[in-house]
Amino acid sequence: MLTGESLIGAAAVRGEGKGFRGVNPATGKELDPQYGEASAADIDRACALAFAAFDRYRETSPESRAAFLEAAATAITDIGDELIERAMAESGLPRPRLEGERARTVGQLRLFAAVVREGSYLDARIDRAMPDRKPLPRSDLRLRQIAVGPVAVFGASNFPLAFSVAGGDTASALAAGCPVVVKAHPAHPGTSELVGRAMQSAVRASGLPEGVFSLLFGAGNELGSTLVSDPRIAAVGFTGSRRGGMALVRIAAARPEPIPVYAEMSSINPVLLMPGALAKRGEQMGKGFVGSLTMGAGQFCTNPGLPLARDGAGLDAFLASAAEALSAGAPTTMLTPGIFAAYQGGVDRLAANPKVRTVVQGQVASGANQGRSVLFETDVESFVADEHLRDEVFGASSLLVRCRDTGDMRALLEDLEGQLTITLWMEEEDTDDVRQLLPVLERKAGRLLVNGWPTGVEVSHAMVHGGPFPATSDGRTTSVGALAIRRFLRPVCYQDFPAALLPEAVQDGNPFGLWRQIDGKLGRE
Amino acid sequence: MLTGESLIGAAAVRGEGKGFRGVNPATGKELDPQYGEASAADIDRACALAFAAFDRYRETSPESRAAFLEAAATAITDIGDELIERAMAESGLPRPRLEGERARTVGQLRLFAAVVREGSYLDARIDRAMPDRKPLPRSDLRLRQIAVGPVAVFGASNFPLAFSVAGGDTASALAAGCPVVVKAHPAHPGTSELVGRAMQSAVRASGLPEGVFSLLFGAGNELGSTLVSDPRIAAVGFTGSRRGGMALVRIAAARPEPIPVYAEMSSINPVLLMPGALAKRGEQMGKGFVGSLTMGAGQFCTNPGLPLARDGAGLDAFLASAAEALSAGAPTTMLTPGIFAAYQGGVDRLAANPKVRTVVQGQVASGANQGRSVLFETDVESFVADEHLRDEVFGASSLLVRCRDTGDMRALLEDLEGQLTITLWMEEEDTDDVRQLLPVLERKAGRLLVNGWPTGVEVSHAMVHGGPFPATSDGRTTSVGALAIRRFLRPVCYQDFPAALLPEAVQDGNPFGLWRQIDGKLGRE
Repeated sequence: MLTGESLIGAAAVRGEGKGFRGVNPATGKELDPQYGEASAADIDRACALAFAAFDRYRETSPESRAAFLEAAATAITDIGDELIERAMAESGLPRPRLEGERARTVGQLRLFAAVVREGSYLDARIDRAMPDRKPLPRSDLRLRQIAVGPVAVFGASNFPLAFSVAGGDTASALAAGCPVVVKAHPAHPGTSELVGRAMQSAVRASGLPEGVFSLLFGAGNELGSTLVSDPRIAAVGFTGSRRGGMALVRIAAARPEPIPVYAEMSSINPVLLMPGALAKRGEQMGKGFVGSLTMGAGQFCTNPGLPLARDGAGLDAFLASAAEALSAGAPTTMLTPGIFAAYQGGVDRLAANPKVRTVVQGQVASGANQGRSVLFETDVESFVADEHLRDEVFGASSLLVRCRDTGDMRALLEDLEGQLTITLWMEEEDTDDVRQLLPVLERKAGRLLVNGWPTGVEVSHAMVHGGPFPATSDGRTTSVGALAIRRFLRPVCYQDFPAALLPEAVQDGNPFGLWRQIDGKLGRE
Repeated sequence: MLTGESLIGAAAVRGEGKGFRGVNPATGKELDPQYGEASAADIDRACALAFAAFDRYRETSPESRAAFLEAAATAITDIGDELIERAMAESGLPRPRLEGERARTVGQLRLFAAVVREGSYLDARIDRAMPDRKPLPRSDLRLRQIAVGPVAVFGASNFPLAFSVAGGDTASALAAGCPVVVKAHPAHPGTSELVGRAMQSAVRASGLPEGVFSLLFGAGNELGSTLVSDPRIAAVGFTGSRRGGMALVRIAAARPEPIPVYAEMSSINPVLLMPGALAKRGEQMGKGFVGSLTMGAGQFCTNPGLPLARDGAGLDAFLASAAEALSAGAPTTMLTPGIFAAYQGGVDRLAANPKVRTVVQGQVASGANQGRSVLFETDVESFVADEHLRDEVFGASSLLVRCRDTGDMRALLEDLEGQLTITLWMEEEDTDDVRQLLPVLERKAGRLLVNGWPTGVEVSHAMVHGGPFPATSDGRTTSVGALAIRRFLRPVCYQDFPAALLPEAVQDGNPFGLWRQIDGKLGRE
């Protein structure tokens, strides 16, 4: 039963003020219950509990921390269909998508359990003492990574499970040994409460200090800014708009002790349709492109918003097939009235741009908050001349740019800001052209794909869901996949420590069985 | 022969304006030649060359990049005694110290050559395709770290070799595959030019693009701010004052594309003199403490500025022995008139504080810019009440705080900002007390030492020379040791790439012989 309360450590606390409710975007109707706003005292209490839990939680053994992550996965699964139904009502997303997203969310927690057990993230290193070295002896030096401290996580609107209360930021922060204070996204409060209560029960069942997890509700910006300003918060995870992410970056930088903000923000995800591929299978690519563009009403960070192609019969075939697929596509309910309005505004601006031609639109909307998908096109000079054409339009809108040659593509890409993904459609005869482009692609994006579509983001060891600014606020990181744990760690060196005080990760005898660098050489001794 | 020119790629370029000269701090006399100021056009040219060199340099093979770092080490050694003599004249530092620093500098370049050859920094990961996985197949995903781009390095005043033109920031950035543009510290321009010319010759001899290394001279702040603002600069390395570091952080954050700044800034390096150790060897510790405090006129980031101890016979013995050693110590020439003036100002403020008692001073100065070492003391309440007592006084000044018990120490440390080091002097009987303190120590510092002095910083695999803010602007990093390379890398994922386009690090067959994670399992296949 949903109560509309914030979850602060082991307690459930009714918020203050007028509060807010979830809204079913398909009907526009408000949903029960009402969610109060977490007060300054609530935020303070959540941060105090997180800080109080930190020293103990970060030193939990690999096995017990991994077991906790697995218990969280089980507890989320155990919510059962109530979770899927509430998420459907709050997001307008269809059942199969949300069932898949739940599987992704619990799979992610289990992946991080495996990462914790494997232990390479601890980066354990031992440089043995050299008492007889000349001119000076060398001390015994041992390094491990430790958790940075309590982490504030902001739920994202577009993945009510996988990038929300127990999503990638939470899973990777908990795996690193950081307590987490989540600000629920106000677009799916009921879904958040359900998952939050599952997390709360996993903390309790695992015998961990209650402050390891808290969940706060609030509709405005104040909760988030108070949370990021709290001196006990050591890092921030966020997925959302560039404006929202940069606001948090500025708050974090202005603190007496600045802290890192990992904001995944804005990307238009170029797709390079190389001539060989267009010639061979332009038609098939057109269909695939529309599938990727319109999936989930286009509400993905990796939505293919910028196809680049050279004129020719292959492009004609691509466009004809894309037009056919797109025009047949039914409009889809978007996540919130606000997201729908922003989408419509972005589409209207492109449609009104004299240098932009509307290639094809999807079917006319018939219900509330339904986004009508659209493909625009322009030429490379117009694109390069008008920086507004690079703005992300969040939703199923894409702008194809006609290029004269690979040189045009290269110049356009070189001029672009950082991206989460860049996709190549190519055949073997395109290899030399792609090889010329590759250095630019590597500099501009966190993930490069060949002959696929960017909208699937695998949760695995080698995934990068990140990229140079403004794709993320910190291009050295990923928010999806095993490497996401590194965002919440910092190295500590122990010099000439007595054995009794050394942490297990760097003890002689290697009690955790870790891969460690001994004098620079990796091994398992 | 020194010419006073900036080194821009392969060229030597005379600067503009009134320029500046090195000054011998021991005599106050100016040294030849005159150094002009690098112009905006010079900075632009250095950045353009660095950017032009980047794509090629970052893809050099491990062997060729390592050989280049070793060639740089050899070229610096080959300068011979001219380097030591010039550095002595410009810094006031004695010959043995500078010979040791040169050994450290070339050893550091060689360590990074080994790191490049070993290749774990590339973090190579392969998740194999699972075409038959249900409900969705998995793509082939491969991850490696690539260099972030050209790096701006600021030479530090206090290590004219090891934290300067070819110091730790330069060595780690070059090892990562980043071209470097150095701003020479105006306190040692001749030393900088000599090392810069050695670097220039190593670039040439290694057949690398000239933009891999440039060295710019300038006396004011404008060169640095223009350099950090340049859109082709992707990261910044800095060692110096908190004020200077934070100025660069702000410039970097205000860019259209913000970039990371790795500034190693401010630390007072607490030393916990535990009761058991004081009782057993207070006298010996007093001597050792003064040795560490006064070495190099105390001009180390890790200078022991905050001893903490409990009253008692052991502390009396420590203070008596420290007083004897300190009062016998001759004053030492400081690096620059500015550093001497700042030191004197800091000491005068402490001496004038009614809550601070002067325990002992070193001998009176007899020459220009000589710092007189000093040990102050205060009680824990006064220390906690007056935040000015936590300011770093760069030089051989230290403030001992008398604590009543371990609880006092813990409360004081908990209230302190981040530190590069915290040192423990302890005996076995202190173990339980130290165990209570350890979580705080780990949260507050990058390196923890037992029964040693913090002023030696080993260049090795397990070293951390970093720490929470304001010790550094980015507490997730170290500026010394092998892990320093990570500051200049970002991950890129290659999805379903054809073999012909995959970088060697993640090719089948493992041509570089790297340790790689295959489906999350570390191995050398």
